[in-house]
Amino acid sequence: MQMKHTTHFVVEPFSEDYAGRLSWGILGNQLLRCASLHAGSHGFGYEDMVRDHRVWVLSRLSIHMDEMPTTGCEYEIQTWVSKVYRQFTDRQFAVVGRDGKVYGYASSTWALINLDSRSAVDLTGMKDNALFSFVIDEVAPIPSPARVRITSDAPIFTHRAAYTDLDINGHVNSIRYIQMALDCLSEFIYKQNLRVQRVEVGYAAEGMCGDELQFFANELTATGGGIEVRNESGTTLAKVNVVLGE
Amino acid sequence: MQMKHTTHFVVEPFSEDYAGRLSWGILGNQLLRCASLHAGSHGFGYEDMVRDHRVWVLSRLSIHMDEMPTTGCEYEIQTWVSKVYRQFTDRQFAVVGRDGKVYGYASSTWALINLDSRSAVDLTGMKDNALFSFVIDEVAPIPSPARVRITSDAPIFTHRAAYTDLDINGHVNSIRYIQMALDCLSEFIYKQNLRVQRVEVGYAAEGMCGDELQFFANELTATGGGIEVRNESGTTLAKVNVVLGE
Repeated sequence: MQMKHTTHFVVEPFSEDYAGRLSWGILGNQLLRCASLHAGSHGFGYEDMVRDHRVWVLSRLSIHMDEMPTTGCEYEIQTWVSKVYRQFTDRQFAVVGRDGKVYGYASSTWALINLDSRSAVDLTGMKDNALFSFVIDEVAPIPSPARVRITSDAPIFTHRAAYTDLDINGHVNSIRYIQMALDCLSEFIYKQNLRVQRVEVGYAAEGMCGDELQFFANELTATGGGIEVRNESGTTLAKVNVVLGE
Repeated sequence: MQMKHTTHFVVEPFSEDYAGRLSWGILGNQLLRCASLHAGSHGFGYEDMVRDHRVWVLSRLSIHMDEMPTTGCEYEIQTWVSKVYRQFTDRQFAVVGRDGKVYGYASSTWALINLDSRSAVDLTGMKDNALFSFVIDEVAPIPSPARVRITSDAPIFTHRAAYTDLDINGHVNSIRYIQMALDCLSEFIYKQNLRVQRVEVGYAAEGMCGDELQFFANELTATGGGIEVRNESGTTLAKVNVVLGE
């Protein structure tokens, strides 16, 4: 059996939210970092792909946390590739405490985009099928993401994408959509002191520097809700579903 | 001579800006984290202070980087207390590469606020004068901060402070002001591919969840400029000066 890739972390000062819980922004970027380190250590990482004018693009990400580690807690993120199909590959994550306690899981789907043709590479045809040899047939136990269908056309929040929102590809960092979606729910998360239990994101298009990101929702309540992010041309960039709990 | 407190870091994937340089947001929070770890390891940290209804409040922060470490680079942050006076204490930082190369320096000033009276504690009267015994009389070689005087009353950027902006005290995280100030300069930093050389911040009041943060500037150019952040009541929260270079 293949090994899972494990990275150790501690919840450091200035990486927490107002309640001392690891912030979702930090956790989200740590998941992406672990994915990147795992891929890189096996020859299918960012550097390897860019040499061939290819880049991994995140298509879906669901994160379900039964509990967030708090200040000073040690935890590890385990990640593994669970499936490879023609245009996508699935990667799973577990967030595990030092004592073996599972804080939560995440599940993601990625495509490999050819930067010249802007189309998805057929993963089944990749040389050596390196990806396939790392598949572990085990899926994180996370509910299927809810479908987000927004009918409202009045944005509840807008943000002009700028320098610090950008990732190394010059696109709005995938996790920024999660942060801004949670900000739309500040009233419940902060003022009513509720907990973010699950975040599900479907990424549709890249946000660029200068784009006005517009956030639309039908109704956001103490149990959460769906949010669609569009640019000012009306193109959907991402759909986010947030589940809150006590 | 007292030892400086040293913490090791690597520029990890998803902690960089569009050009692969360590992001200012990550660096800024790492500086605060190192300050916190150093103070905590010597009995004057967050936990120790909160027990006595006191909290360290950042009053000034200047960061000057000759160069930013890039993806994969190992670096360390050294920090030490350089001075203690009645209502303030100065803390210095050096960002040093594995080969001893100095990437840059930072300098900060802190006050210890009594949470009951909301006034500054007289540091010279602290029990055991623990702080004093850790003073290293060495100041980071950073130019004095420029005075920021904004006459414009038309905001160039506004942001409603929300959940993910908040730190563990429930205030807008100090580094968020830096990020948003840099975002006001996106045109130069990203589109003209300029480098952020120095950031100077004077913190005046706390931003709260729900506050509309308004950013004012006289003129921002390819060499940078001053930015004042106010809430919607007109109270100045912070003044930021940014120096750009090639």
